[in-house]
Amino acid sequence: MDLIEEAVTAAIDSSRITALEIDAIIVSNMLGEVTSSQAHLGSLVSALLPHRPPAIRVESACGSGAYALHTACAFLESGRAKTVLVVGAEKMTDVSVDAIAAGLMVAADSEEDRPSGLTFPGIFGLIAARYMHEHGLTREELSLVSAVHHRNAKGNLFAQFRNVITPEAVSKSPLVADPLRLLDCSPISDGGAACILSTNHESEFRLAASSIASDAVSITKRPSITSFPASRDACGRALKEADITLDDLSCLETHDCFSIAALINLEDLGFANPGEGISLYKDLYEGKKTRFAINASGGLKGCGHPVAATGIKQLNDLAKQLTEREERWGMAHNFGGACASCGIHILERMHD
Amino acid sequence: MDLIEEAVTAAIDSSRITALEIDAIIVSNMLGEVTSSQAHLGSLVSALLPHRPPAIRVESACGSGAYALHTACAFLESGRAKTVLVVGAEKMTDVSVDAIAAGLMVAADSEEDRPSGLTFPGIFGLIAARYMHEHGLTREELSLVSAVHHRNAKGNLFAQFRNVITPEAVSKSPLVADPLRLLDCSPISDGGAACILSTNHESEFRLAASSIASDAVSITKRPSITSFPASRDACGRALKEADITLDDLSCLETHDCFSIAALINLEDLGFANPGEGISLYKDLYEGKKTRFAINASGGLKGCGHPVAATGIKQLNDLAKQLTEREERWGMAHNFGGACASCGIHILERMHD
Repeated sequence: MDLIEEAVTAAIDSSRITALEIDAIIVSNMLGEVTSSQAHLGSLVSALLPHRPPAIRVESACGSGAYALHTACAFLESGRAKTVLVVGAEKMTDVSVDAIAAGLMVAADSEEDRPSGLTFPGIFGLIAARYMHEHGLTREELSLVSAVHHRNAKGNLFAQFRNVITPEAVSKSPLVADPLRLLDCSPISDGGAACILSTNHESEFRLAASSIASDAVSITKRPSITSFPASRDACGRALKEADITLDDLSCLETHDCFSIAALINLEDLGFANPGEGISLYKDLYEGKKTRFAINASGGLKGCGHPVAATGIKQLNDLAKQLTEREERWGMAHNFGGACASCGIHILERMHD
Repeated sequence: MDLIEEAVTAAIDSSRITALEIDAIIVSNMLGEVTSSQAHLGSLVSALLPHRPPAIRVESACGSGAYALHTACAFLESGRAKTVLVVGAEKMTDVSVDAIAAGLMVAADSEEDRPSGLTFPGIFGLIAARYMHEHGLTREELSLVSAVHHRNAKGNLFAQFRNVITPEAVSKSPLVADPLRLLDCSPISDGGAACILSTNHESEFRLAASSIASDAVSITKRPSITSFPASRDACGRALKEADITLDDLSCLETHDCFSIAALINLEDLGFANPGEGISLYKDLYEGKKTRFAINASGGLKGCGHPVAATGIKQLNDLAKQLTEREERWGMAHNFGGACASCGIHILERMHD
């Protein structure tokens, strides 16, 4: 609740609205029951405001943030609300490492995946091994991803890790789930993020598209594990809704829960051909100018991954980046599990 | 997932729609993480349909069902969906009694209520004791509530308990949380319920109103524990939305998680003055004709209370009752915790 309150206060204070204008709240949370024995967060968050607006908790694993934003859009478009507070938070460090690893597995299929002993590092380890087999990606190349994300996080005061790391340090970090190493994995994090969506106020930013899509939860039920169709589906519909093409985008925040995911995401979103996502990270690592920014915030690896807050935090990061760079279009790409649920948001900065 | 699949199949089979018309799914679930180590139910349910429509999981404790219906309304009104499947399920009997009692406490305030050792029978025991003190309700009178609910459930093939019980049996059943006894308490249940809301089809039924409201989660933060303001708030807004008065209602399904709740609810909804809710149950017990039916399904006590399914099941029960009685208006009243979240739906049968 402290994490939520801090994020909510910051969102209200940095906006043009007053708390009393908020007429609906969507709360994003994944692990409250597991780590804090706490559900019913809608009502708990509502009580933070004097007029207790209607409040709903939405969950879609690590994609909860995007799903909460999407739900908020529906409430605004329905006319049932004019000003919606969207807040996500996760308190992950109060329980043991074993408990959090087991807890995160609620995002997997408890009948198909859990009995095999898989954890999410294990699932993405299998994905990374298969990707390397299919596309010839080397361990040294993969290490560029986290190196770039840490460097990007360096100037981000909200990032959990602001230390620069070398690709060699990634390659030599302890093995977690072969071939993934410690520094390939986003960390266990405490964090909160909030934003306010309103149809009542002029703003520098417009949420131009919101889309969600899903896939089989268990990777055992997928024809391929090196591509996530839900990303393709949600991205296609989001671009159509915003009436733009990929070429219009200047900033991308994508869901790098593990280094390998960043590469797959760039390919599924259409920024790179299959197997070629690493070329963008090579350019970034070498300091070449790329056509668009990728996880300029530091991504999940650099910023931390308080799971249900991530999708909302991505949107806030895009707003900062578009302002700093004086660009128009940004995309936030957030998913749950191994992209069994995917949410895409396109943010437009209005005044060029 | 079996409970969900059975409910979904029944909902589709009994409707005029085909599965492929469903363009959004709202899943209601409270305890998946606690009892089945399973979150991410939106994507799991989506995969039951060949075209995997977008699917969101909503939670508001035992009021999750009503909150899912409310969310579905927003998606329909936004135009983002034309046909929404709403499904709720709960599998509560796979874990120990201790585990489920502790698990249900995720609906309470884990910082304020849990440290005192309270459980929900304990919370409603305090509420019942206070209500008896304030209004002079006797133990014998309170026992009429469950007796009526069991008698109502007798003919309901979906009810968990179809045995008639006497008020004396209630009064003599084992003490659970003074003054509440075993037969004052809705049971631990497995169950699922689903319905389909569509703006694309003519139907015999129209969802005329949907409203939600919240209150402090901890009863320690309430000025009174014998009245639930969230019920008053949600009910007032629902009646306004449907443009009817209480007098228009012929059927009420209300949230009798404990016998005392049924009395408080009748008073908060405006059907009885404070302290006089029991008079309606006296009439019902004596077989007198009441102006409107109360929990004709058997309520939570008779039907069982698979927590997140209950709010959806209430709506299905209202549809049956309005058809059987050839009446027009019914109200479903569902809440979470000690009414820290409340959802009200008004159903209209269109062809008199």
